Amino acid sequence: MLTTRGAATRQRIITGAAALIRDHGVTGVSLDDIRAATSTSKSQLFHYFPQGKSDLLLAVAEHEAEQVLADQQPMLGDLTSWQKWQDWRERVIEKYDAQRAGCPLSALTAQLDVARPATQGIITRLYDRWHAHLSEGVQALKDSGEAEADLDSDAAATAILTAVTGGATLLQATDSLTYLETSLDQALSALRRDATPVARVRG
Amino acid sequence: MLTTRGAATRQRIITGAAALIRDHGVTGVSLDDIRAATSTSKSQLFHYFPQGKSDLLLAVAEHEAEQVLADQQPMLGDLTSWQKWQDWRERVIEKYDAQRAGCPLSALTAQLDVARPATQGIITRLYDRWHAHLSEGVQALKDSGEAEADLDSDAAATAILTAVTGGATLLQATDSLTYLETSLDQALSALRRDATPVARVRG
Repeated sequence: MLTTRGAATRQRIITGAAALIRDHGVTGVSLDDIRAATSTSKSQLFHYFPQGKSDLLLAVAEHEAEQVLADQQPMLGDLTSWQKWQDWRERVIEKYDAQRAGCPLSALTAQLDVARPATQGIITRLYDRWHAHLSEGVQALKDSGEAEADLDSDAAATAILTAVTGGATLLQATDSLTYLETSLDQALSALRRDATPVARVRG
Repeated sequence: MLTTRGAATRQRIITGAAALIRDHGVTGVSLDDIRAATSTSKSQLFHYFPQGKSDLLLAVAEHEAEQVLADQQPMLGDLTSWQKWQDWRERVIEKYDAQRAGCPLSALTAQLDVARPATQGIITRLYDRWHAHLSEGVQALKDSGEAEADLDSDAAATAILTAVTGGATLLQATDSLTYLETSLDQALSALRRDATPVARVRG
């Protein structure tokens, strides 16, 4: 159990390491770079991260996973009207447009070996929480009558989440934002009560 | 321009390298391993791949990109009825279920630097061709009356493609197949004429 001060020091190291890694890439940053940037001694660093770089990278991945959700707030936690869903959509598009191929979390997990249980736990918890927010948002639209009452909230949330991750995967690979915009529009239009059916455009 | 025999030798090296890399990972395979497995001399290898490993890895990535589409054939090239779409869906689920986190193409592109134009070209062409097949399939359903005539084929194809890539991304990250199954069902149900709207399940 860390003291408050210890927790603050640990967080300072993580935040500093995350910023360095965002700028220079995982492989371009050494422990010495991180120590210099965060004014930390070697013994301090190993006090908070006994396994050294692998421990620290895992903590940075956890920090970046938090950031994925934080970047979508306050919209993601309050998807209680169609307008708020639209605002969330704008935020998501903006964020991925700015980030393009440079997703800090993918860059990290590519280095961390996704099959490692600790890494997989971070990612699985991220997607679980993201999915729960979306599912609550669909439920809110059902409650307010903006979506049909017999919509399956969890399935709809999955369709929206995969539209984002699939669109982001294609953006990273092709540098084209169109896939993400279209996939998100298609998934969201499925939520609307009285909406024209998904994937249908009237001329 | 390679002779027929030269092209066959080059292809033999690529196929052998791809198999080794599938088994041992990109970083676990050296040029010497590839020479031994394919009975190739050093001069032969550099004749076909002047830049050595980076050239060869690019050729293997191109081969694996072909494989992504080949694994979905003959269904993907002939999505002319609802039944054929269902058969394609089964194939996709089966393939990703078998492969889990071990997507050979992602493993390669993670090593190849996706920002490099040659790598990005391979991936962009893959997604373009994949999208074209899906779009033709949606058009075929429209022509036969199994889908509404005013469906936007390209947008529907994008929704289906991102459902696959998004579902596969979540499968790789979480080892759960449910996301892919649900996202694909949701995207496909949007195609059906007279289908219940997407993301809606009747109890």
